[in-house]
Amino acid sequence: MAVNFAPPDPASLRAVRGVELGTAAAEIRKPGRRDLLLIRLAEGSRIAGVFTRNRFCAAPVVVAKEHLAGRPQVRALVVNTGNANAGTGSDGIARARTTCNAVARALGCDLRQVLPFSTGVIMEPLPVDRIVAGIPACVADLKPDNWRSAAEAIMTTDTVPKACARHLSIDGEETVVTGIAKGAGMIRPDMATMLAFAATDANVAEPALNALVREVAEGSFNRITVDGDTSTNDAFMLIATGAASSTPISMGTPQYAQLRGAIMQVAQTLAQSIVRDGEGATKFITVRVERGASVAECRKVAYAIAHSPLVKTAFFASDPNLGRLLAAIGNSGIDDLEVDGVSVYLGDVLVASEGGRHPDYREEDGQRVMEQSEIVVRAVLGRGAAEATIWTCDLSHEYVTINAEYRT
Amino acid sequence: MAVNFAPPDPASLRAVRGVELGTAAAEIRKPGRRDLLLIRLAEGSRIAGVFTRNRFCAAPVVVAKEHLAGRPQVRALVVNTGNANAGTGSDGIARARTTCNAVARALGCDLRQVLPFSTGVIMEPLPVDRIVAGIPACVADLKPDNWRSAAEAIMTTDTVPKACARHLSIDGEETVVTGIAKGAGMIRPDMATMLAFAATDANVAEPALNALVREVAEGSFNRITVDGDTSTNDAFMLIATGAASSTPISMGTPQYAQLRGAIMQVAQTLAQSIVRDGEGATKFITVRVERGASVAECRKVAYAIAHSPLVKTAFFASDPNLGRLLAAIGNSGIDDLEVDGVSVYLGDVLVASEGGRHPDYREEDGQRVMEQSEIVVRAVLGRGAAEATIWTCDLSHEYVTINAEYRT
Repeated sequence: MAVNFAPPDPASLRAVRGVELGTAAAEIRKPGRRDLLLIRLAEGSRIAGVFTRNRFCAAPVVVAKEHLAGRPQVRALVVNTGNANAGTGSDGIARARTTCNAVARALGCDLRQVLPFSTGVIMEPLPVDRIVAGIPACVADLKPDNWRSAAEAIMTTDTVPKACARHLSIDGEETVVTGIAKGAGMIRPDMATMLAFAATDANVAEPALNALVREVAEGSFNRITVDGDTSTNDAFMLIATGAASSTPISMGTPQYAQLRGAIMQVAQTLAQSIVRDGEGATKFITVRVERGASVAECRKVAYAIAHSPLVKTAFFASDPNLGRLLAAIGNSGIDDLEVDGVSVYLGDVLVASEGGRHPDYREEDGQRVMEQSEIVVRAVLGRGAAEATIWTCDLSHEYVTINAEYRT
Repeated sequence: MAVNFAPPDPASLRAVRGVELGTAAAEIRKPGRRDLLLIRLAEGSRIAGVFTRNRFCAAPVVVAKEHLAGRPQVRALVVNTGNANAGTGSDGIARARTTCNAVARALGCDLRQVLPFSTGVIMEPLPVDRIVAGIPACVADLKPDNWRSAAEAIMTTDTVPKACARHLSIDGEETVVTGIAKGAGMIRPDMATMLAFAATDANVAEPALNALVREVAEGSFNRITVDGDTSTNDAFMLIATGAASSTPISMGTPQYAQLRGAIMQVAQTLAQSIVRDGEGATKFITVRVERGASVAECRKVAYAIAHSPLVKTAFFASDPNLGRLLAAIGNSGIDDLEVDGVSVYLGDVLVASEGGRHPDYREEDGQRVMEQSEIVVRAVLGRGAAEATIWTCDLSHEYVTINAEYRT
């Protein structure tokens, strides 16, 4: 069960002018469930994206990056779940291209105007015939208000579909930002999350769009971790159709900041929903590291806490075995860390200072915080003014069950 | 249950001339179990050690390093389980010194000739009064053939005591190496394992002993990981009493190589037994990375595989979901890794090559290997001549249970 996260109300998911979505059940892994998504973009739309840094990046990532490098007018995105088309060598690349080609023929565009995305099991051949056979049904289903069914069609071990929308007024023009994401395991994005797509009808100049997608990824998807495993298929794509205005937004303008704020809200909500629905998650944990010498070292400490199986199992058990937090901080690879200067808070409770347990700390205070489903851990390093926040979840029996039985 | 690892036969554990061991039940955490160990060394013994690099290193580690820095004639080691005396600030240091002082008074030596060691729960005050009260019983129990009960007295979540002995003849002198270790979780030693003590009656010159302990730690305890969490208390101590010979062994001699071989065997057996008895372990996994550009990058890849929760749960499930191996390799942080050059073997089965599944790989072959309790994973990087091996275990429900319920 996801932690304090209900499926989005379809009525809340605003359509984005210039974006149509269609889904189909292509029987990629399981019969009868929608597992194929087609997104069609109106002419003039711009798109920018960030991708996984995993060296075994999937064939669709290779092809999408290749297509984007040609700076085409992207007209369609095609996404399948159930098979990642990763670790599939040159045959996988060919199958990703075949998928793009089928979409291009169905929509009357060039194959380089189509970006492919896949998620699911790794190192198994993509069932490209079934995907090609499913495309006409996706085309027939294309509608602007299909965001909720699109979110459902890209789920793998997700237990709830993830979608979010915001609207804002930019220079008096009503503007919408809507996004969807999927992901529950193999989540420690280094560039972006497993798969996330956000669209706005704002008119955004290309350099501004490239900057936006990076800034937003950095503040949202790149700040979450479930299990520290960076996926082979991570991608976050940001679409700007331009339907809301004829004036493109440039970097460094108030309009840019305004739009970035709305997109960041959508992306953070989606990113946090991935953690809330993390495989086996029972707790949503915010790890905040403050007063570090640099953002990089704050992140090191935050990930050391968030990736420690001992910390994660203590959260699962609601056990204030908080010495594990100190061990994780000491283990984060900051060679000149003086532990006497470190303080650790659990929620509002000061747990440790001056290298050890704080004299006023009482186990029952720690226990009270540990029993909550939303917990903030704060490590104050006392070395500088930098800070970093990441979001993670606990490690439960259910995580082991899900990943031991993933392919059955 | 430990993986293919039975408790050592007490008769196989050779006494080491010059070393006596005594244990007692000091009621540190649980009544009625032996939880305190005293090791007395004959005059003229030499000792060298390596310690955790965790910045929140425990008070006994601080004190032991401080005492060693004074280059004393170490006469005793005192070890308690049940409480790590870590994350305890200056009060913890004082309690470790009080322990040493009590031992010094009981044995008639200086407190700086005593080294303290602790293992157990972090951030709780060391019950030093009970430890001091238990020391006379340890003294009364001192005997050369107490290695097996010593191994039992330092256990925490270990399910079997860990001890091992070898004997060899150096220049015609019968020489013995005997060691004990403990550890099952919070295991990813960066300098040494949780706690390990090995003694030989060989006569070893001090620089040679310092070199030996480092070389052996590097090839044994530093090559294992259970959960990637480096403990606050790790220590590996190597004792040479010199009783076997009047001629000290120096570095770079055939005798040095001979002794190192025997100590390495003892240390590797102990290190591997820690993995075999890793918390919840059901599989013993050797990860071997070959043909890397450097040993450092081979280790990076090996640890990326060994620390991936997804890889570990697949091993637990005996599921050849081997794409997770590729994802872990791709995720190991080698930015210029060309995946086309990587081959992956599971046991004798070639699973992947040229960036994807090998054409001859059949799921049933992978399944056959996955069902074994001892599995070798080989990643061949095709970048150079370096290699590295580490040993790890799987991630099971039992790991979560043990660590969720550790303090109950």
